[in-house]
Amino acid sequence: MRLATLRDGSRDGRLLVVRSDGAAVASDDSLPRTIQAALDEWSQAEPALREFARLLDDGNVPGERLDPRRLGPPLPRAYEWVDGSAFLNHVRLVRKARGAEPPATLETDPLVYQGGSGVLLGPTDDLVLPDAAWGLDFEAEVVVILGDVPQGTRAADAEKHIRLILLCNDVTLRNLVPEELAKGFGFFQSKPATAFSPFAVTPDELGGAWRDGRVHLPLVTTYNGERAGDPRGDEMHFSFFDLVGHIAKTRAFTAGTLLGSGTVSNADRARGISCLAERRMIETIDTGKPSTPFMKVGDTIRIEMLDERGRDVFGRIEQKVVPTP
Amino acid sequence: MRLATLRDGSRDGRLLVVRSDGAAVASDDSLPRTIQAALDEWSQAEPALREFARLLDDGNVPGERLDPRRLGPPLPRAYEWVDGSAFLNHVRLVRKARGAEPPATLETDPLVYQGGSGVLLGPTDDLVLPDAAWGLDFEAEVVVILGDVPQGTRAADAEKHIRLILLCNDVTLRNLVPEELAKGFGFFQSKPATAFSPFAVTPDELGGAWRDGRVHLPLVTTYNGERAGDPRGDEMHFSFFDLVGHIAKTRAFTAGTLLGSGTVSNADRARGISCLAERRMIETIDTGKPSTPFMKVGDTIRIEMLDERGRDVFGRIEQKVVPTP
Repeated sequence: MRLATLRDGSRDGRLLVVRSDGAAVASDDSLPRTIQAALDEWSQAEPALREFARLLDDGNVPGERLDPRRLGPPLPRAYEWVDGSAFLNHVRLVRKARGAEPPATLETDPLVYQGGSGVLLGPTDDLVLPDAAWGLDFEAEVVVILGDVPQGTRAADAEKHIRLILLCNDVTLRNLVPEELAKGFGFFQSKPATAFSPFAVTPDELGGAWRDGRVHLPLVTTYNGERAGDPRGDEMHFSFFDLVGHIAKTRAFTAGTLLGSGTVSNADRARGISCLAERRMIETIDTGKPSTPFMKVGDTIRIEMLDERGRDVFGRIEQKVVPTP
Repeated sequence: MRLATLRDGSRDGRLLVVRSDGAAVASDDSLPRTIQAALDEWSQAEPALREFARLLDDGNVPGERLDPRRLGPPLPRAYEWVDGSAFLNHVRLVRKARGAEPPATLETDPLVYQGGSGVLLGPTDDLVLPDAAWGLDFEAEVVVILGDVPQGTRAADAEKHIRLILLCNDVTLRNLVPEELAKGFGFFQSKPATAFSPFAVTPDELGGAWRDGRVHLPLVTTYNGERAGDPRGDEMHFSFFDLVGHIAKTRAFTAGTLLGSGTVSNADRARGISCLAERRMIETIDTGKPSTPFMKVGDTIRIEMLDERGRDVFGRIEQKVVPTP
């Protein structure tokens, strides 16, 4: 089952069920009004949504043509956005790029940061860049949406708390990072609003590609019309189950919490990159200095994940960089 | 006007209006169901709530006796919890305590961190301590709730975005902090759920004590029945307006965002402390080592703020430390 959110002028938008072929959507007054409302009462909502999806697929309820530009992020405002950094190749490259050592516990203790979740971007929202000197970069990631997670939940018990899967562009202002991290409290100004894919899907939509808390598919990033990379999710060092076990050590999480994988990155250079910081680091290793600039006004970024049948499961994130209006 | 949230079994509770004398509360179906709903449509909600508060004070609508134990936090789940550290005396002492230097930009660039906001504690909720070795500490703070804040809002324009004021106990697991901060991504496991005061109040409730983006009153903390401190809000180096200007540099905030002052702390030692880490640092300075342990099962903590008439404006945070059930 795939869900999306229509921008209807309300703060949380309107839940849409997506037809299997991805070409049409539908909603119904008998269903929860929003994805958050569905998550709040998932055990009742899920069967009703699945039944409606079946009727839509069978042509027994009418679908409306999907217009991706009318979609917001599946959760326009979320209660938490916790982002891991579970692809260690990314951590190693990015730390090297800013002259920092990876933490000593890199392979045993997951890195996570708490992101802003009150204002999130839709899949085709512009990336507004007030100051090119901030060093705008994209970061393509896989994200899960959690149900209620009690404090103390262990990785081995985490799977049942994963409700939906989606993608994000975890936008980063690279040139604001070093000074901010030097203050010791983590990212803040260096992480503007994150953009999310059109569809949030139940794990069964991925078939066998969802296993051991990882999505075993390539994440395809296209920058200014050219392939930037298609690294696979297989190399996620800490699985989403591990990340749940980590974050739940000292507190509980409410339904609707977004939990990210961190930038998808593979050790094999042939898979390309999911953020410019990695490409710049590789250039530095090879030639002594980075030659790829950060994003500028007019640039475009596309992020999608193709399943074994070649279907873009989550729809596409397609954004353009624009100046302050 | 003072607002509270009744725990009624729903995720967001039920908005209550508090009578001027603090002894009774009332709600009405004509009013927004929750504080978040009121914040979402504040320009319509505020006049209706104020009129209802006037009727309650005049005895024209019946009040129910206030039972503080039935109250949740004003926002049981919030879209963001951004906490500053704007009392520099606190920053200097706590950094010294963990052998870290204050950042070079201490006086010019505010420190903020992004906290977890999906599961928040009510004013009388127990502090569950699974492991005494984590080093449980309280932190008494002043918090504001924001309306919608556009990206790029400057400090000079921030006042109109401040809707409500309240207190919090920003619980910290001190012994988890050093390793976590060494990883470079800020606090996560070291910050369990934060507890909030019973009442969230409009700034006019503070009269002249709310000015220049600060609350000019003493914040009284009582630990195990003994006065721990009553430092004043006057010494807040960066005002709430400054903090809004800082956080809005690269993104917007949605109505209902919680923004904290950081631990209230005064340079004058006679004002006492608002967290044990400060007392331990003072002991270290005076005697070479800390003698006060962190909190243990059975400990109690009370946090309240008294206005010029001696009224506890926000009600009391009163919590007890308990073991894992």
